[in-house]
Amino acid sequence: MKILSFLQEGRAGLAVQSGPEWLDVSRADPTLPTDVAVLLGDPQWQGRLARAAERAPRLDLPTVKFLSPLRAPQKILCVGLNYVDHVAESPYKQQPTYPTFFPRFASSLIAHEQPMIRPRVSDQLDYEGELVVVIGRQGRHIGVQRALEHVAGYTIFNEGSVRDYQFKSPQWSVGKNFDGTGACGPWFVTADELPPGGKGLRLTTRVNGRVEQDASTDDMIFDVPTLIALASEAMTLLPGDMLVTGTPAGVGFGKKPQVYLRAGDLCEVEVEGIGVLRNAVADEAVVQEAVPA
Amino acid sequence: MKILSFLQEGRAGLAVQSGPEWLDVSRADPTLPTDVAVLLGDPQWQGRLARAAERAPRLDLPTVKFLSPLRAPQKILCVGLNYVDHVAESPYKQQPTYPTFFPRFASSLIAHEQPMIRPRVSDQLDYEGELVVVIGRQGRHIGVQRALEHVAGYTIFNEGSVRDYQFKSPQWSVGKNFDGTGACGPWFVTADELPPGGKGLRLTTRVNGRVEQDASTDDMIFDVPTLIALASEAMTLLPGDMLVTGTPAGVGFGKKPQVYLRAGDLCEVEVEGIGVLRNAVADEAVVQEAVPA
Repeated sequence: MKILSFLQEGRAGLAVQSGPEWLDVSRADPTLPTDVAVLLGDPQWQGRLARAAERAPRLDLPTVKFLSPLRAPQKILCVGLNYVDHVAESPYKQQPTYPTFFPRFASSLIAHEQPMIRPRVSDQLDYEGELVVVIGRQGRHIGVQRALEHVAGYTIFNEGSVRDYQFKSPQWSVGKNFDGTGACGPWFVTADELPPGGKGLRLTTRVNGRVEQDASTDDMIFDVPTLIALASEAMTLLPGDMLVTGTPAGVGFGKKPQVYLRAGDLCEVEVEGIGVLRNAVADEAVVQEAVPA
Repeated sequence: MKILSFLQEGRAGLAVQSGPEWLDVSRADPTLPTDVAVLLGDPQWQGRLARAAERAPRLDLPTVKFLSPLRAPQKILCVGLNYVDHVAESPYKQQPTYPTFFPRFASSLIAHEQPMIRPRVSDQLDYEGELVVVIGRQGRHIGVQRALEHVAGYTIFNEGSVRDYQFKSPQWSVGKNFDGTGACGPWFVTADELPPGGKGLRLTTRVNGRVEQDASTDDMIFDVPTLIALASEAMTLLPGDMLVTGTPAGVGFGKKPQVYLRAGDLCEVEVEGIGVLRNAVADEAVVQEAVPA
């Protein structure tokens, strides 16, 4: 099942796909959370969606704005250096023996078809197409064998990175957390629609239609069950937590000479079985700091 | 004003200090948020607290459990390598020219007098006493000159770090995010009670009564206004966001030989004008992973 989070005439809502149509389940059950990260916290979410879908009106997709399917997850845990060929193009070179987890704040999230913001303090905004795993069941010290029981589904991420800021200090955090740089969507897909652990999916990133990243999720150094097991050694994973599983080769930072995004560029990240996440790049608007009253 | 978040017979509440007493303002106004991170999102919070305090009963402090004054901030942005002498004892040595920001998830937070958890997968849990700055007013591209207008107040952090995990990859994130390792409290102190930017405060960390860290917040490499200005170049700072401003020399990791915390150890972080944050160390309980129904 695909679950879409949308905004229509100021109303946030949730829709589920049914054949070629989208059903506005929030219209049928206005008490449904409209953020998938919140929805997954309700153990009854599947039954609630199914019951609402039975009496939901059709959603006219062209009339809505997309929202990020998850907006207030407890954790967004990204993984760096998780594809062999991307490690080779990075400054790190050596194959890692442990995943390079790093956090993103939800404040950096944008939705499908929202502009990805090139900040005014840098001209080094770069794309990173990635598969996102969304946790559905709480766990700590989750074993590799049972890890996929904790997965609710998947979505797509364009993990926009401001490269000069990423490398201003030993920690990448600032370059990975600029406002308006973390695109997520277009929708959430439940785990039953994809191969276990999202294995063997083709991941493609296009900029202005030109293919810049083209890989299989099989090329991950640490696969989804391993990432879940290792993250949960340290942290309790909660429903709605996102694991952003890393990007393959082909980022602009890895090219010689380096190539960065400019206003008007169109980024598309496609993951087989999920869809296409599309974002145009826009320059940050110059807004004066509000003067206090 | 000092604001305390507490739990009393299952009820979360907020109390404010008045002379030698604590007033249970949540008893007077049960609609008050009990998380200071949420409270600060209400522009009327000061007036609401003042009105509630006028008719609030006394809180019997020995009967309550402390809660972390902030539990669901949008962002916890820590700063590494921010005291000259701590940089010298770290593996980095070189004085930074840009702050080493890194995130913590709120899931790692514990309160004053809660046990700090030594994880079962590591014997390298270390303390880090730190001053916390709490944002009170939203801003982006905040200038250094106006930065302190965005500060609501201060609290104390023991930024518990699991050193082997911190250095398993190029990013410190896992070692900085173990469940039960980020102690915050004992309470929140409004900015008007302390020198501007928390300057010139003595910060002391004691383990089992022995002084292990003893510094002045004047020794920060990047002071509070600079941290706010630089963080807000990338991210919109929001009411309740926490800046955990770094630790001075004296951590166990920097000693030769290295010394780590053990179950039963008592950590105390004291910041002049705020109070003492006290946490005993306990080993992680061995809990079986829940078997799914």
